[in-house]
Amino acid sequence: MVAHVAVGKRTKRIDAPQKLTGQERFTADLTLPGLLRARTVGSAYAHARIRRVDKRSALEIPGVVAVLTADDLAIQKDEQGMPIKAPIAWDEALYSGHIIALVLAETDAAAEDGAAAVEIDYEPLDVVGTLDAALAPDAPKVRETEQQANDEEASMHNADAARRSEEDDEELPPNVSNSIHFQRGDVDAGFAEADEVVDLTFDSLTVHQGYIEPQVALVAPEPLGDLTVYTSTQGAFYCRTRVAETVGLPVSRVNVVPMPVGGGFGGKFVLIEPLVAAAAVTVGRPVLLQYTRMDDFLAGNPAPDCRIQLKVGARRDGTLTALQSRMTYDTGSSSGSPLQIAAILMGGYYRFPNLDIRGWEVLTHKPGAGAYRAPGAQQGTFAIESVMDELARKLDLDPLEIRLRNCVVEGDERPNGKAWPKIGLKQCIEALKNHPVWRDREAPQASGRGIGVAVGGWPGGIEPATATCRLDADGRLTVVLGSVDLNGTNTTFAQVAAESFGFGPEDVRVTTAPTDTAPWAGGTGGSKITYTVGAAVRQAAEDAREQVLNLAAQHLEAAVEDLELSDGMVRVKGVPSSGVSVKEIASQSMSGGNQPVFGRGSSAITQSAPGFAAHLAEVEVDDVTGETRVLRYVAVQDVGFAINPAAVEGQIHGGVAQGIGWALYEGMSYDADGQLLTASLMDYALPKAEMIPPIEVVLVEVASEHGPYGAKGVGEPPAIPGAATIANALRDATGVRVTEIPIKPQTLADRLSAVKTGQNGHH
Amino acid sequence: MVAHVAVGKRTKRIDAPQKLTGQERFTADLTLPGLLRARTVGSAYAHARIRRVDKRSALEIPGVVAVLTADDLAIQKDEQGMPIKAPIAWDEALYSGHIIALVLAETDAAAEDGAAAVEIDYEPLDVVGTLDAALAPDAPKVRETEQQANDEEASMHNADAARRSEEDDEELPPNVSNSIHFQRGDVDAGFAEADEVVDLTFDSLTVHQGYIEPQVALVAPEPLGDLTVYTSTQGAFYCRTRVAETVGLPVSRVNVVPMPVGGGFGGKFVLIEPLVAAAAVTVGRPVLLQYTRMDDFLAGNPAPDCRIQLKVGARRDGTLTALQSRMTYDTGSSSGSPLQIAAILMGGYYRFPNLDIRGWEVLTHKPGAGAYRAPGAQQGTFAIESVMDELARKLDLDPLEIRLRNCVVEGDERPNGKAWPKIGLKQCIEALKNHPVWRDREAPQASGRGIGVAVGGWPGGIEPATATCRLDADGRLTVVLGSVDLNGTNTTFAQVAAESFGFGPEDVRVTTAPTDTAPWAGGTGGSKITYTVGAAVRQAAEDAREQVLNLAAQHLEAAVEDLELSDGMVRVKGVPSSGVSVKEIASQSMSGGNQPVFGRGSSAITQSAPGFAAHLAEVEVDDVTGETRVLRYVAVQDVGFAINPAAVEGQIHGGVAQGIGWALYEGMSYDADGQLLTASLMDYALPKAEMIPPIEVVLVEVASEHGPYGAKGVGEPPAIPGAATIANALRDATGVRVTEIPIKPQTLADRLSAVKTGQNGHH
Repeated sequence: MVAHVAVGKRTKRIDAPQKLTGQERFTADLTLPGLLRARTVGSAYAHARIRRVDKRSALEIPGVVAVLTADDLAIQKDEQGMPIKAPIAWDEALYSGHIIALVLAETDAAAEDGAAAVEIDYEPLDVVGTLDAALAPDAPKVRETEQQANDEEASMHNADAARRSEEDDEELPPNVSNSIHFQRGDVDAGFAEADEVVDLTFDSLTVHQGYIEPQVALVAPEPLGDLTVYTSTQGAFYCRTRVAETVGLPVSRVNVVPMPVGGGFGGKFVLIEPLVAAAAVTVGRPVLLQYTRMDDFLAGNPAPDCRIQLKVGARRDGTLTALQSRMTYDTGSSSGSPLQIAAILMGGYYRFPNLDIRGWEVLTHKPGAGAYRAPGAQQGTFAIESVMDELARKLDLDPLEIRLRNCVVEGDERPNGKAWPKIGLKQCIEALKNHPVWRDREAPQASGRGIGVAVGGWPGGIEPATATCRLDADGRLTVVLGSVDLNGTNTTFAQVAAESFGFGPEDVRVTTAPTDTAPWAGGTGGSKITYTVGAAVRQAAEDAREQVLNLAAQHLEAAVEDLELSDGMVRVKGVPSSGVSVKEIASQSMSGGNQPVFGRGSSAITQSAPGFAAHLAEVEVDDVTGETRVLRYVAVQDVGFAINPAAVEGQIHGGVAQGIGWALYEGMSYDADGQLLTASLMDYALPKAEMIPPIEVVLVEVASEHGPYGAKGVGEPPAIPGAATIANALRDATGVRVTEIPIKPQTLADRLSAVKTGQNGHH
Repeated sequence: MVAHVAVGKRTKRIDAPQKLTGQERFTADLTLPGLLRARTVGSAYAHARIRRVDKRSALEIPGVVAVLTADDLAIQKDEQGMPIKAPIAWDEALYSGHIIALVLAETDAAAEDGAAAVEIDYEPLDVVGTLDAALAPDAPKVRETEQQANDEEASMHNADAARRSEEDDEELPPNVSNSIHFQRGDVDAGFAEADEVVDLTFDSLTVHQGYIEPQVALVAPEPLGDLTVYTSTQGAFYCRTRVAETVGLPVSRVNVVPMPVGGGFGGKFVLIEPLVAAAAVTVGRPVLLQYTRMDDFLAGNPAPDCRIQLKVGARRDGTLTALQSRMTYDTGSSSGSPLQIAAILMGGYYRFPNLDIRGWEVLTHKPGAGAYRAPGAQQGTFAIESVMDELARKLDLDPLEIRLRNCVVEGDERPNGKAWPKIGLKQCIEALKNHPVWRDREAPQASGRGIGVAVGGWPGGIEPATATCRLDADGRLTVVLGSVDLNGTNTTFAQVAAESFGFGPEDVRVTTAPTDTAPWAGGTGGSKITYTVGAAVRQAAEDAREQVLNLAAQHLEAAVEDLELSDGMVRVKGVPSSGVSVKEIASQSMSGGNQPVFGRGSSAITQSAPGFAAHLAEVEVDDVTGETRVLRYVAVQDVGFAINPAAVEGQIHGGVAQGIGWALYEGMSYDADGQLLTASLMDYALPKAEMIPPIEVVLVEVASEHGPYGAKGVGEPPAIPGAATIANALRDATGVRVTEIPIKPQTLADRLSAVKTGQNGHH
């Protein structure tokens, strides 16, 4: 066991001081000479042909500079002559709030007035508002044009992303934009072997990522038509590509400056940047668009609603025999839902000798589906973990025992045939099993409370990354990256680089550079930044360390292998009086015939490090109102190695809170005309602090082979098991199995009342 | 002979389009919210105690926000309790124009009015305005406080910089801040062996660098007190260090953004940045100071005036026997003149068996001496090349023959005992000797014109540097550097990187990054950027190429050594149908388990590559007015290898024009009270286009061992021989030897008139 000096220690976030003192500068805080403020004009209809946009009244408002529709904008066409994807309607609005025009003005107030004054002449068209409507035999087509899903974005989230397999010859209804089929063994035979079968259908609503800072981007034209894009993005290089293709510039002429992100959770890779860029190019002035919260609800990229029918069979001893499922993900008006990963995880936590999962991605008149922390996993996990709970009850087995008996370990196959690498699912379940809150659950249960458990996991991503580590004149290190710090990873990287030098993290500056100068890195999503960029940072720091030792060896006239580095000094081992400071080496390296110390690391990890969590919740339900209170929560998670335990715990706290949001509160409701009923935070319920119980975090450390110091990604897993954990706890408390999330008090009260009157019941 | 695809080709500057179309953004074009404009209040006296600064009237002017004297500013003290050097007077003004206060206002106009309204109560003190006054036995001390010269800045210009040798025990007069002594053999014996001796004393004036864009810097406070410095600097990292020490921040908390430089010529390493930074910290708002041209003249850092007595002896056959010299450089009110390099070059072009050079750096009440393109070399070269010309005349030898007989070659020693490496001085002289303008000089001479020749050289610098070369998603390259592009080096680097990939320079983007993210590089000065950073760029590009070939080898299932890269494709040699594009490799490198292609290069060159030039001028003099017209000019230069011949020629054209300025026009005149008489471009004569003749450039290529493709630095050498070349041509035309530069018409007319009346004359 090596003693660490910097990693494995609770470390304050290096960006905390400016954030806590209100000094951080976010995108909307920027101003530039000549800056125009933009406001959106969104479609009043969920589906309509746009006959005419009358700009005259808007343009008469003092300060309004331009009213731009898609036709006015400098947006490139693709090879088929179709405009490159940008979130603006062409001649057809595809969802309520679909942007039809941007109003640019000298002030935000003028832009707002201008947006209100734009008059649009619509021809309303048939609305396909739900999965059922979209899949009806006579359903109108949601969109006429084919639209390709974006594999690049999908691959940022997890290493298992892939499109539909070509062998699959299922006939698809008109509004199905993509389908999957995973098959193993013989499910009919499997169910025949089963002693018990549970078959349930789960529904979930569209969910908003709930970031504090709305979507925001500022695009400034530069000399010769180059562009600088200041934006709250999770993926600067990906954003650069998308902006470049929209406005028709080589990527080298677009510089994306990644600004501090006031919350992203998957919703901020690219959304409005190409549109704002096209507007800036069109008017030749810098343009800032910041969504209102209503814009975010209406024209964002929320997590999609879905329906999952799931049937699982098991023998009396709990051994699983078969899984069969039909999943339908509502991908809104453009393809790109996380159907595939949902299927792989839902069918991948346990060993199913026989398995058949079919899934459709279905177009409707809603905004396109986006990523939200563990995209796809929440709904798939809600289904499988609810079913496992019911199965345990039917078989009268301990819900952790049935999981331990069946859970996957290294070498077991996922539905897509890929074997799991070394994972910590079993260790997480065991840790929960030994936890006092689980062991001592009978007392709360006796007092009418319920205890629920569920697991969840995430494959993790493996996008490559480069990092550099420069030794500065003052003997400190500067790490330069292309990855965005969404949740404290730059602090973690300061620790990683510091560890190589025996420094404290305060001696390392970590900078995310703009795309014009940054080493390449993928987007911040899919629980991969610490795992992949961290490996590059460690390499870069070790490389820099080696250069320092080589210079010190010359200086001290000693062999490199006889040197040690600690307390900012390089010394000959066993000769404490000898020594040269790193600062002195730094100074030497920048003069004469030496080389500046400049370490480089590139990660090329071929195997992801999946992360698992096992959650426990204790709940109490008001029989009359159906209101649920979550009283205790235990979150066990395999994090590989916690480089910054404080940051890891912070991630788990946040993930649990969001999981409780999925379970009990959050859901975007649309009416039959496709109008959003929950377009503000007055209507859409985010969990508040008082709704979140004390969270006990238990870290399990099954070291990964490739992550720095064994670390794995920790962002996604804690957000996954929440809905099932709460639903299982409610089942435990009330006997009622709820299969729709969020679980609204009214639903629960109705079900409880029905149980009382004998209409429906378990036990 | 390898055929090159990108290097060695005349290439348009990549920064030309935005500069030629007026789209380039210089520092003064920037605005920031809350920006304050600054104006200076300079001392009315060349030496005075500042009794009181009355700010009241200034502060009453609407828009004026602050009037800051040294006492008000957040400037750190050094270990002796002395304020860290910043160009502001403490309680004593040391030269006319020495900044006493900065006025900050909402507008430049208000700041200007405010500056005019500041009232200063002075106690005038004795002024030491000239070298003679400073060295007089009863001279008052120019400054009470010791002030250390800045070795770091000196070392940026040439590899031979060093301070006074400690063995030298010469007693120094009070205003001598530094001295040098180089000695070899026995000069008395040497002169005894001589058949002819020439002993002349040369005077030159203070010279302004004549950049178009005045000194300018904008400093913005950032969250938590960090600073961003936008500035027209030649050395971003050096500027960072100086700002950080002035305001007392770690270097990592100061980010210097090197802006396009509108001319620097050595005058823009660091001057006003620490002062502007201190002002910004003091008021907590961004501050922009742009010098007026008069500020530049009064409170800049001009090339120093000096006096050089030089005595050289030779045998009848031209063999040199001895050199003896006394050099006095006027360093103004702060130490740091280029005395040492002047001595090393003056005594270093020829083999002198016996040599004795003593030099003093002398303090006076003028602004501190700064660097100006080949600092020190112009004046030293003016002396030695004038003397060589006289010696040739006395000995009746061809002036090129006496030079060829004595000029140094590889292995010969400089005055400091260091041997010259491989140099091209002899080759330059030979090229000039064979040039038709030299061979056919009798006709113009017969018509009363004069032909003069002179040589000059520069040791070059060797500061280390790192560069990176990133392969982008579109298959193009991005080179990132920390060095400032002063004169087209980024274009040269685009060629260097392109060459490694068989690309055109248009496929390479070269970016100088801010110091927070840039690879380290030294300042742009001393003819070293192409030589040192260029070597790093080549390494980085080759490194990236190797990574591309490795990826291609996997893709093509071939061995790396069987691959070739051309036209953007990697192919198996001899199998033209095989192949994968660099773009495809780029795409692969950023996904799956690959590494992004990210090349790194660091130069660690231990030996500089001195560059030499031999110039020829043909002149015509108006006997009555003394006006000189330069009719033709031939500039031969050893450039090692011309990566971009167009840029090299541009450098030579500019250097020749500046040399003509030194010879005939430029000089800052001070009166006995230390008041500058030439504080505007109405009074100070910069050569205009009509004063510059057609310039014929002849490139000699004696390849360097370390520079990219054999390149050497080319910036300094063409600015060195001008004064002597013109003086020698005038001597040839008129018989008059002028030993003061600039050679003013009146001086020449007086001398010609004296010759006519027999008072003075040669021949």
